[in-house]
Amino acid sequence: MIKVGIVGGTGYTGVELMRLLAVHPQVRLQAITSRSNAGTAVADEYPNLRGIVDLNFSEPGMNAYRDCDLVFFATPNATAMNEAETLLSAGIKMIDLAADFRIKDIPLWEKWYGEKHTCPDLVEEAVYGLPEMNRDTIRSARLVANPGCYPTAVILAMLPLLEHGLIEPTSIIADCKSGASGAGRKANVGTAFCEITDSFKAYGVAGHRHLPEIQQVLKSVSPSADLVFTPHLLPIIRGIHATVYADGKGSDGNVQQIFEDFYRDEAFVDVMPAGSHPETRSVKGANFCRIAVHYLEQSNKYVVLSVIDNLVKGAAGQAVQNMNLMFDIDETTGLDSPGMMP
Amino acid sequence: MIKVGIVGGTGYTGVELMRLLAVHPQVRLQAITSRSNAGTAVADEYPNLRGIVDLNFSEPGMNAYRDCDLVFFATPNATAMNEAETLLSAGIKMIDLAADFRIKDIPLWEKWYGEKHTCPDLVEEAVYGLPEMNRDTIRSARLVANPGCYPTAVILAMLPLLEHGLIEPTSIIADCKSGASGAGRKANVGTAFCEITDSFKAYGVAGHRHLPEIQQVLKSVSPSADLVFTPHLLPIIRGIHATVYADGKGSDGNVQQIFEDFYRDEAFVDVMPAGSHPETRSVKGANFCRIAVHYLEQSNKYVVLSVIDNLVKGAAGQAVQNMNLMFDIDETTGLDSPGMMP
Amino acid sequence: MIKVGIVGGTGYTGVELMRLLAVHPQVRLQAITSRSNAGTAVADEYPNLRGIVDLNFSEPGMNAYRDCDLVFFATPNATAMNEAETLLSAGIKMIDLAADFRIKDIPLWEKWYGEKHTCPDLVEEAVYGLPEMNRDTIRSARLVANPGCYPTAVILAMLPLLEHGLIEPTSIIADCKSGASGAGRKANVGTAFCEITDSFKAYGVAGHRHLPEIQQVLKSVSPSADLVFTPHLLPIIRGIHATVYADGKGSDGNVQQIFEDFYRDEAFVDVMPAGSHPETRSVKGANFCRIAVHYLEQSNKYVVLSVIDNLVKGAAGQAVQNMNLMFDIDETTGLDSPGMMP
Amino acid sequence: MIKVGIVGGTGYTGVELMRLLAVHPQVRLQAITSRSNAGTAVADEYPNLRGIVDLNFSEPGMNAYRDCDLVFFATPNATAMNEAETLLSAGIKMIDLAADFRIKDIPLWEKWYGEKHTCPDLVEEAVYGLPEMNRDTIRSARLVANPGCYPTAVILAMLPLLEHGLIEPTSIIADCKSGASGAGRKANVGTAFCEITDSFKAYGVAGHRHLPEIQQVLKSVSPSADLVFTPHLLPIIRGIHATVYADGKGSDGNVQQIFEDFYRDEAFVDVMPAGSHPETRSVKGANFCRIAVHYLEQSNKYVVLSVIDNLVKGAAGQAVQNMNLMFDIDETTGLDSPGMMP
Repeated sequence: MIKVGIVGGTGYTGVELMRLLAVHPQVRLQAITSRSNAGTAVADEYPNLRGIVDLNFSEPGMNAYRDCDLVFFATPNATAMNEAETLLSAGIKMIDLAADFRIKDIPLWEKWYGEKHTCPDLVEEAVYGLPEMNRDTIRSARLVANPGCYPTAVILAMLPLLEHGLIEPTSIIADCKSGASGAGRKANVGTAFCEITDSFKAYGVAGHRHLPEIQQVLKSVSPSADLVFTPHLLPIIRGIHATVYADGKGSDGNVQQIFEDFYRDEAFVDVMPAGSHPETRSVKGANFCRIAVHYLEQSNKYVVLSVIDNLVKGAAGQAVQNMNLMFDIDETTGLDSPGMMP
Repeated sequence: MIKVGIVGGTGYTGVELMRLLAVHPQVRLQAITSRSNAGTAVADEYPNLRGIVDLNFSEPGMNAYRDCDLVFFATPNATAMNEAETLLSAGIKMIDLAADFRIKDIPLWEKWYGEKHTCPDLVEEAVYGLPEMNRDTIRSARLVANPGCYPTAVILAMLPLLEHGLIEPTSIIADCKSGASGAGRKANVGTAFCEITDSFKAYGVAGHRHLPEIQQVLKSVSPSADLVFTPHLLPIIRGIHATVYADGKGSDGNVQQIFEDFYRDEAFVDVMPAGSHPETRSVKGANFCRIAVHYLEQSNKYVVLSVIDNLVKGAAGQAVQNMNLMFDIDETTGLDSPGMMP
Repeated sequence: MIKVGIVGGTGYTGVELMRLLAVHPQVRLQAITSRSNAGTAVADEYPNLRGIVDLNFSEPGMNAYRDCDLVFFATPNATAMNEAETLLSAGIKMIDLAADFRIKDIPLWEKWYGEKHTCPDLVEEAVYGLPEMNRDTIRSARLVANPGCYPTAVILAMLPLLEHGLIEPTSIIADCKSGASGAGRKANVGTAFCEITDSFKAYGVAGHRHLPEIQQVLKSVSPSADLVFTPHLLPIIRGIHATVYADGKGSDGNVQQIFEDFYRDEAFVDVMPAGSHPETRSVKGANFCRIAVHYLEQSNKYVVLSVIDNLVKGAAGQAVQNMNLMFDIDETTGLDSPGMMP
Repeated sequence: MIKVGIVGGTGYTGVELMRLLAVHPQVRLQAITSRSNAGTAVADEYPNLRGIVDLNFSEPGMNAYRDCDLVFFATPNATAMNEAETLLSAGIKMIDLAADFRIKDIPLWEKWYGEKHTCPDLVEEAVYGLPEMNRDTIRSARLVANPGCYPTAVILAMLPLLEHGLIEPTSIIADCKSGASGAGRKANVGTAFCEITDSFKAYGVAGHRHLPEIQQVLKSVSPSADLVFTPHLLPIIRGIHATVYADGKGSDGNVQQIFEDFYRDEAFVDVMPAGSHPETRSVKGANFCRIAVHYLEQSNKYVVLSVIDNLVKGAAGQAVQNMNLMFDIDETTGLDSPGMMP
């Protein structure tokens, strides 16, 4: 049994981690911390966990994690970096679901996140936790930077095209739509039911923190790669739909076959048949990414449609997948439930 | 032209007043106050009003209302009572959309609202602004207490039964469901999209502030009247559906005809044909109350279904209807738009 | 391994059965039939099952079920009754998720369902599959009538009160609200997105097929029990919320303790703390029923709030629970996932 | 008073026309036809119109329209073309809200709509009813082809850029999202509440009927213009959001000023301040198009965000705007209501 702790258990990624870990056969949940809710029962905050998670929230700090083999940080950005040194030197592995260890270029990180980074050395050590790219290094990592939700959807859509050199790497446009849980759980007029339901809008057209993250990863595959990234807010709870456009190089290059071959051995990436349109609900609550690739001959453009559940493959599920790799457990353990339709 | 002001223009009832008054042919909107947003353009907060309402929010206070004939208070409870004396003595009429002047029993009000009332004399003077009951006194009122949203739906459902003595007045159960805009516009985890959508719950089973308001009005018709009142939260923006049960006295008493006769001359109460089930969307954005009455012979119970838009007939629309009466304008002026379906 | 078949796999209860059985460790899904979709892949109709259920829909009939130990009927009413004789004589057990075997009074069934019943003898044999009432008889049953969704929510709310004689048994009013998946998956203007979302209504006030089912069960506990039952349509996918009222007999009788004791050993009924209001989302996708009981002293009325997921505890989950009992498997196997929040 | 008729009054554009015309001071609604509902009251189908529209649906045909000055066709494609000759020769003007008269290239229309066109001559005569482009010819038209919903949103977003030569005309990508009312009102599993809510998907990536319509109009401004067009289905009732990308020619060319100047005199096109993100709800129920233009210097791309209500500016409202022009009424008459927020 792996003994795990969760820091920041009151947010949506925290409760989603609990939902997944509750049915993971090889995990014992030891501690869930929350500065604001310390002392209260987890199940009082999240009644879906009544009878399933019997812990109380505890104060963050080494006292809480001392016995853990692994700690998940489901905290706001710029939190995990302050505790990483301590945990790692105590021999505790870490997966950060926030952005502290994702961007290798420290000044770039500091520009987008508006903070001084407190442990640049660990950024260098951290492994970007996208198993479809970095499975082997994740296996031996002490510290995993769990990818952002938008980056997961966009990168998985673009990897086969970039690796096979099928597209102009500077021509990428990622028009992305996310459910409201991506904004987290906070008191905020802007995320109120009456402000979001029955409506739709873009946001952050001028710039969004996931842009440099996607750029870094795509450039690691194809150095000149670049993209325009437009996030939009969907009136749904869970789900990201990325519609990604890129200029081809003159023919479709048998792209359906290339995608199917590329992801053949991946348990959590499902390449749909030619002509498909994946729905976000097909992955609701599940760790899958469903992808459909279209080639428009007349305009010589690829259109790749990619859907994930932002709280699962885009956050907590991918973190559990990384945990499985880090502890040499079968990668799909605890993650085999299908999406919930309807 | 009536010159009107709105106090507390940043909430949902405030913006709804502006939406309705913008197309009212005999109103000039002079001032909209908001302590928190003073100085900013109304249309920056509510882009639906761009090009339609060109005012800035101003600081509350007599400077803002000096030229007004009427001021609407779309403020939190226990606000209007502090300004009523000043406005009325300056000859400005007032409609309070909050609860300050609804309950005649001052200690009862103070118990439910947790505040000391600052102008009990004006409570006595104030007219309860339900035109279907009090049309004549509203016409000559200086100060109107605009009814609550739940009370409007429940009272209109019960009036014909109580006035005709068809039911046991102590047997009423009002199972009510309200859209989320009823909770107002505030930063609050509990009203976040992800907390409300795709879910449903009751609240306040042990007691809700609209209970004494309904009791007071029903008792004014039938002194022994009493009810159980259970509010629920619907994942919709606008709309209240009241399902009201009461024990009959042995026969249906031709209840369909009684309802139709009772509301025959009312422009805003629509008694549907026997056997109907009104939908909240049939009154979305409109000032109507749609009612269907059922009599269940086997159990000798009446079931009355009553729907309103909580922001219109349950708040801003009813306030405009009251204004029309107070200023001797045709009662339906500015309120004749049908509901929006779909 | 139990070998199971599903008849009528294209509806919402069918796909929900597949979602649950896919992760049940002791079940092998042998056959899924669908007259309309025979020959096509299950995963083409339900892409959430891609990579998880690899079967094609097959033609209904004994050929499909020959090897099965158990067949679930997720079919329209009046379908299972035509095949029951054949299956049972072949030694195949049956769980009918429709209404064919729920009502013991054949003429009553025929009146409400508008069909001649084809196997009254089997109705007599069939066990009403509410484990909290009939656990022992379910264990040895060949044929289980899986309860309706509304009945499950209402009966579990009323059982402790009726068994302890705390209420006037004729005074029950069940004001019930159901998500749209309760209406099944059909081409129908009335269930279109634009007709249901952002709205709310009652339906079937004059009479609903679940009324005689609830009456039969409540009368089996307290012969004079009767109720008024009003269903409403919620703009949510999954979830039933029953708000059940009943007159007390003069004191609350320590009702919180009585409920807790009554359901202490039940894995799937969760009595919440006094003063609670359960949310339907707390059981989304899960087999739980969450109940809160309130006693209103002033009016001497009990108000019981009861929530289930109509597709799980109200249909497919309860069917799996019954299967576990019939095959002597631990009752909670395959059903231990918490609800999905958010 | 203009006497008008509506053909096909049972669909969503039909009822929306009635909602708008009901408050239009210079229109008398004479006849509403519906083959399927002839004889029944309009208000039975659309209870929001109870007490407002007192007509019955009548059989389609000249008997119904004989006294009309204008007939709106809110019918399926390939319907209006069969009656146009007759109506126009009787001196009755026509606005077709379907696609019969939008595409000038008859073989192209026949390819996309799968029908033989029955009156190619009238296609030549018909005026494309986008007032912002064709106001003067609309004034004198007998037959107006009301634009599609997607085309309205995309064309208004691109017109200033194309007319000012700011973009590469072949580089346009229109990533569009539409509410479910765009699919019309039909019995269809695919548009059921449980299939659409809490989900999102693209459709028609390989080709959509609005593509040739947009191409025709853009090419009329800039002959080489072309685009990739991807429609998506939003879980909202009303609203289109077009996110349109195009390559710039090296600088932003003061694009904010250009847009503001371009639409300065347009009552129904609102150019928002630089940096804005329009929300579909800001135009819910209203005839406005709200546009925000962004220039991304680093990638030299324009991103234009454009929102309309597909049933209003995208259908019925634009038709009323065209009617006003054709009958020399002030263009904004009956169309001055603001959007409904919340």
